[in-house]
Amino acid sequence: MLHNLTVVLVKTRFPENVGMVARACANMGARNIVLVDPERWSEADGDPAKAVPLATPKGQDILSGVRVVATLAEAVADCAVVFGTTARTGGWRRELLSPERAAAEACPVLAGGDRVAVVFGPEDRGLTNDEIEHCHRLLTIPTAPEASSLNLAQAVLVVLYECLKGASAHPFRPGPAPDSRLANHAELELLHDTLRDTLLAIDYLRADNPDYFMMPVRRFLGRTRLRRHEFDLVMGVCRQVKRMAALAHATPATEGTTPEGSLPDDTGNVN
Amino acid sequence: MLHNLTVVLVKTRFPENVGMVARACANMGARNIVLVDPERWSEADGDPAKAVPLATPKGQDILSGVRVVATLAEAVADCAVVFGTTARTGGWRRELLSPERAAAEACPVLAGGDRVAVVFGPEDRGLTNDEIEHCHRLLTIPTAPEASSLNLAQAVLVVLYECLKGASAHPFRPGPAPDSRLANHAELELLHDTLRDTLLAIDYLRADNPDYFMMPVRRFLGRTRLRRHEFDLVMGVCRQVKRMAALAHATPATEGTTPEGSLPDDTGNVN
Repeated sequence: MLHNLTVVLVKTRFPENVGMVARACANMGARNIVLVDPERWSEADGDPAKAVPLATPKGQDILSGVRVVATLAEAVADCAVVFGTTARTGGWRRELLSPERAAAEACPVLAGGDRVAVVFGPEDRGLTNDEIEHCHRLLTIPTAPEASSLNLAQAVLVVLYECLKGASAHPFRPGPAPDSRLANHAELELLHDTLRDTLLAIDYLRADNPDYFMMPVRRFLGRTRLRRHEFDLVMGVCRQVKRMAALAHATPATEGTTPEGSLPDDTGNVN
Repeated sequence: MLHNLTVVLVKTRFPENVGMVARACANMGARNIVLVDPERWSEADGDPAKAVPLATPKGQDILSGVRVVATLAEAVADCAVVFGTTARTGGWRRELLSPERAAAEACPVLAGGDRVAVVFGPEDRGLTNDEIEHCHRLLTIPTAPEASSLNLAQAVLVVLYECLKGASAHPFRPGPAPDSRLANHAELELLHDTLRDTLLAIDYLRADNPDYFMMPVRRFLGRTRLRRHEFDLVMGVCRQVKRMAALAHATPATEGTTPEGSLPDDTGNVN
């Protein structure tokens, strides 16, 4: 039911927790775990073997299919929507979803045949701001205010439990035609970089700190559920704009007409 | 928020699981754990100490307040509503609630100042039928069909998580006047026994197997949310009926008029 959902664990510290997450995945019908740069997961040190008893027999298949990658970007490259989990509730400029609301967003995507990732930070610290920038949506699990730190497998279980509940309301349909599937994380990252380069090329953004201005664009892209053919379209437009800009820059007469302005203020509707 | 909810763990096998449950309780704002006849919980063998690391600092208060009792009846004596958890879905004649539905029933009771218990069976087998007879309501956590056995602390967390979600919709009000509080489990058990004795005294039930006929009565009592003053009233009626029956039996002329019949058929509305 949750077979195209990926549980991404960033820099886990203890193999035993990976085992417990594998069991939780089995309980809720999820099949895929990706470890990003785990602290202890060396075959030579027998780390994966330490996870085995905690995965229980039902989690062994999932455990042996665990994928290890170096970066979060790599882990979520094929996912259309990436949910990040955080226990922090203060100071976020971004909307924090409840697990229930996140599941309500994830389930139609899963049912459409696209991949969804849910990203969990290390046991002791949660996700960093840089890691969170790879997440399209953020969710937080409600807890008692005085004890908000959940065990990793507990956090995974609650999110998957809500997804399993939601999945029954959104039964899986066979995947859509390839050209109408959702753009995945890797494509959205490429689109982000292309847009930045294009905006730089037309002197709309200034070269000194374009990433700051691009932050709301990234969030907008994470929210839009852009489809693959729309991605192709915007990429084509950017290519053409950059070509025009290159031609324009080759013509001395157009220099000195650069407009000044920041993207968030000018576009208004991206945040 | 869930301070008048009791987590009852029946015959737990491993102290470590009690520690993890304490942490889950802390995370969701529940404070009370009762162990019924635990397999390993001996101070001499250092069992409680094994639970300490898994409870994490936030769970230590809860862990040191763990109460150990010999029987399930004792554990839930002061609770107005007792929920039993089961992974089994086949063959039940009783309604199985989702955690969400169970929380929707539990939260108004908790908010009214009455106590609610949620009972979890041992790690390896779940609750027995005898144990389930002490539960007014049964709930089951949805899982993938091929891996329905949850870790004990995971099961506790999911149920408490739903209760915490529900509790925000039912903020705690100061307790009602003592005479209008809900009857608790011990009172309901006493009422059950008194009704049985009364029905035996008037020769309505036959002495060979009264408990079989009383089963639907027990379930009815578990569902009604009887208040304390109503309990007093029915107890008083029973007392008077038994007095009349004793007088009647002392009069030889009334013998031989015993009606035959089973309680469920005759009363119709208890099941």
